[in-house]
Amino acid sequence: MGSSHSALNFGAGPAKLPRSVLVEVQNEFLSYKDSGMSLIEMSHRSKEYDAINNSAQQLIRELLNVPSNYKIIFMQGGGLGCFSAICMNLMGRTGEADYLVTGTWSHIAAKEAAKYGKVNMVFPRPENRSIPDPSTWKLSENASFVYYCDNETVDGVEFHFVPETNGVPLVADMSSNIMTKKVDVSKYGIIFAGAQKNIGPSGTVVVIVREDLLGNAMKTCPTVFDFAHISKNNSVHHTPTTFAVYVMEKVLQWIKTSGGVDKMAENSHQKSTLLYDAINNSNNFYVCPIEESCGVG
Amino acid sequence: MGSSHSALNFGAGPAKLPRSVLVEVQNEFLSYKDSGMSLIEMSHRSKEYDAINNSAQQLIRELLNVPSNYKIIFMQGGGLGCFSAICMNLMGRTGEADYLVTGTWSHIAAKEAAKYGKVNMVFPRPENRSIPDPSTWKLSENASFVYYCDNETVDGVEFHFVPETNGVPLVADMSSNIMTKKVDVSKYGIIFAGAQKNIGPSGTVVVIVREDLLGNAMKTCPTVFDFAHISKNNSVHHTPTTFAVYVMEKVLQWIKTSGGVDKMAENSHQKSTLLYDAINNSNNFYVCPIEESCGVG
Ligand SMILES: Cc1ncc(COP(=O)(O)O)c(C=O)c1O
Ligand SMILES: Cc1ncc(COP(=O)(O)O)c(C=O)c1O
Repeated sequence: MGSSHSALNFGAGPAKLPRSVLVEVQNEFLSYKDSGMSLIEMSHRSKEYDAINNSAQQLIRELLNVPSNYKIIFMQGGGLGCFSAICMNLMGRTGEADYLVTGTWSHIAAKEAAKYGKVNMVFPRPENRSIPDPSTWKLSENASFVYYCDNETVDGVEFHFVPETNGVPLVADMSSNIMTKKVDVSKYGIIFAGAQKNIGPSGTVVVIVREDLLGNAMKTCPTVFDFAHISKNNSVHHTPTTFAVYVMEKVLQWIKTSGGVDKMAENSHQKSTLLYDAINNSNNFYVCPIEESCGVG
Repeated sequence: MGSSHSALNFGAGPAKLPRSVLVEVQNEFLSYKDSGMSLIEMSHRSKEYDAINNSAQQLIRELLNVPSNYKIIFMQGGGLGCFSAICMNLMGRTGEADYLVTGTWSHIAAKEAAKYGKVNMVFPRPENRSIPDPSTWKLSENASFVYYCDNETVDGVEFHFVPETNGVPLVADMSSNIMTKKVDVSKYGIIFAGAQKNIGPSGTVVVIVREDLLGNAMKTCPTVFDFAHISKNNSVHHTPTTFAVYVMEKVLQWIKTSGGVDKMAENSHQKSTLLYDAINNSNNFYVCPIEESCGVG
């Protein structure tokens, strides 16, 4: 049980969390704010959890400069659950959606989407790790939304531009790059991210959704995935993963006091430059399969 | 931050957890099993989490004497998510299901079920807090399953018998009484329970499902709710709420070393007798609205 050494998990997620956050959680684990109870023993309707829930939303709003016509909700089901939820909330409007498949996660999302309607592939899945030139994209007129994965965790393909959709709501999976760069939220219909890669432990998904997209869920949409219902009930319509939101709130606080998203972007660039440089200077001992424009940020 | 006093949350859940479990989690929070990492920083595909995941299943199997033709899975989405999941997994077989509505939670479950097929009310919702005599029940011939809530958390109505369904799979919500009494699992098609009331923090649902019921999910069932898919992948098909399963495993271990379900049943009976006696001896200062046969176990 010694904690004399410390190790670092370089996997995508669940992954490394700030040491100071972990120490704080440990210190207050038996008695949160002198309540005599652990946070994990408290009701999600307690004033303590209410404060955490609101603060986490407020911090996301601040850090990402989220406009006031966007709701921020927390749900269970992970990134994969959100793949379905997106469709069950938005796809009913026209019965179809456009998918930009640039790697594993957008591929899985598109497969999931096919359960709920017609999926249009905006371009054939690239054979190399790259993003086809937008001038070659085939967007549909009737799409309920255009979906893409902003950073393909497994394949390494990252978008360094915001896809242009001519007014069709844009949906982005930012599970593995949220808070690593500035984002113009107003260009999106929905941004979502499983917490466990960049901002917390597993168990909660952050969904940032433009208000006018709420209220169109399919009849068969499980209540726990109905964004309008979750939003109306401030993400405590049923028992949330209180621990995950609690730790996430501390990570968000840590991001803020560490210098915000600008500083995280700088750190992230430094880290990936280190890695990409090591690869590029290895005399082909390592090779990077990712096209340069989609690589280091 | 002092933990000089300790308080007890009497709410249903999230609720009190064994002190020794909390202390253990606290002690190993920064370095799980001398790994130099917190458990919440570790991959769900690590050997450490794999051991936890398997042990939690094994403990449930042991404690509830679960027969070998039942799978034990962990999923996200909470009890409410499971209301939908049950239907999306089982209701497609005949398009209808029977519901025993004895309080708030079975009522909500029946409402959710109506999204997926025809819901037959086995009896009109009782006006007092009681269970109508089984001889008056109207079970349907064509039901995919018969659903009931074994302990209505809000209303206090508990079943002290197993409903007879003449071979139709029986589905029980045991969120608020799992591990408080012996159960003959072989009489059930599915038993499920959100962890946060009796066996852990919020964030995971335990589903015990008879093997032959797997594999009939509706086409629109989200992958994260497809019991067959979860089972085939040992509940790590995507990122589970690792922290919740980790703490739950410790609570289950604590139940085992404390004397198992028999001992928990005894404790539970003692606790409820204390409470019911206080009510009954209060000269009508307190009144108990629950019919006696559905009250203290
Ligand atoms: C970009 C991206 N989207 C979605 C997921 C799936 O998330 P989850 O495991 O929470 O379902 C992952 C990760 O594992 C991911 O990297
Ligand atoms: C018996 C019962 N079923 C289901 C639920 C819903 O669980 P959740 O809040 O995890 O969705 C609850 C509790 O809150 C409950 O007491």
